[in-house]
Amino acid sequence: MAERRGPWTRHGRVPLCATPCLTAYRDEVTLPHGERGAYDWVQVPDQVRVAALVDGALLVVEQYHYLAGTMWQLPGGSVDPADGGSRTAAHRELAEETGYRDGRWVDRGSLHALPGLTPARVHLWSTIDPMPSRAAPEPAEADLVVRHIRLDEAVFAVWDGRLRCAASAALVMMLALERSP
Amino acid sequence: MAERRGPWTRHGRVPLCATPCLTAYRDEVTLPHGERGAYDWVQVPDQVRVAALVDGALLVVEQYHYLAGTMWQLPGGSVDPADGGSRTAAHRELAEETGYRDGRWVDRGSLHALPGLTPARVHLWSTIDPMPSRAAPEPAEADLVVRHIRLDEAVFAVWDGRLRCAASAALVMMLALERSP
Repeated sequence: MAERRGPWTRHGRVPLCATPCLTAYRDEVTLPHGERGAYDWVQVPDQVRVAALVDGALLVVEQYHYLAGTMWQLPGGSVDPADGGSRTAAHRELAEETGYRDGRWVDRGSLHALPGLTPARVHLWSTIDPMPSRAAPEPAEADLVVRHIRLDEAVFAVWDGRLRCAASAALVMMLALERSP
Repeated sequence: MAERRGPWTRHGRVPLCATPCLTAYRDEVTLPHGERGAYDWVQVPDQVRVAALVDGALLVVEQYHYLAGTMWQLPGGSVDPADGGSRTAAHRELAEETGYRDGRWVDRGSLHALPGLTPARVHLWSTIDPMPSRAAPEPAEADLVVRHIRLDEAVFAVWDGRLRCAASAALVMMLALERSP
């Protein structure tokens, strides 16, 4: 059964491959200009990134990413829709990766990381003055290091290429703009 | 043959599915804490996004995205490594989508959109005072509308959810920070 999506029409869908981490699909579509074609895309869980400010310093995690090498990123991870959505994931990932909990949370909206490839969004949160407790990173994050850095250094780290995660960069600069005179 | 990647080791790779748009792979790995496992990931082309300032206004494209609905985004698209890389793609996509060419270009670095899923990067460029010519959007972009908006409105559009592309948001706020007092 055809489904309208703005100027697109979807006629059918076949899974191309499925793993516990991702599923790739091919949709049979009519494009905005009327031609029939295929749209290949990937389903992955939504993500969260958290800007946590502790005594005026931003918590940044440094880690080796299997696909991208060493980089700085804001704490975060995958959203489990069955477990409370992005707010719960933000609290959980901040606590697991940095040990910090609570504070004054603000929902910073969400961004599409690769809107042509996946409908997955990255949900952005901030928290001011969370309290320290014990971090419990997942085994695969054994090499994760938490840094406390000034917000202006985090902005500089986007410019100089240390902080190369798009959603983290956007959230860092959102906070910096909010605090600029 | 095992390949070291920071604290990870790759032992092998199998393609899971391949289309003209994307390829999914499963790598057999040893994780940082020493356990064996699988890492599933997707290969897609790198992207570019361009911040073009014309008479002080930013060029923004509004378009219905098949996976994400209507949103604002900076002009851009896929990089073809066989055709000059990200600089060539930035010039081409700006011209195709908006009709503007040339101007004073600056390389703004690159970001990882989803570093856990794909090694693909989004390359960021800016250009000041490009010259108007005729736009030639691709057929699938028949519904694309070009807007000239103030930089501070583009920042506001990130906050209010009209501009939801992570790399576009990061680049818009990078320029706004550069121009803030």
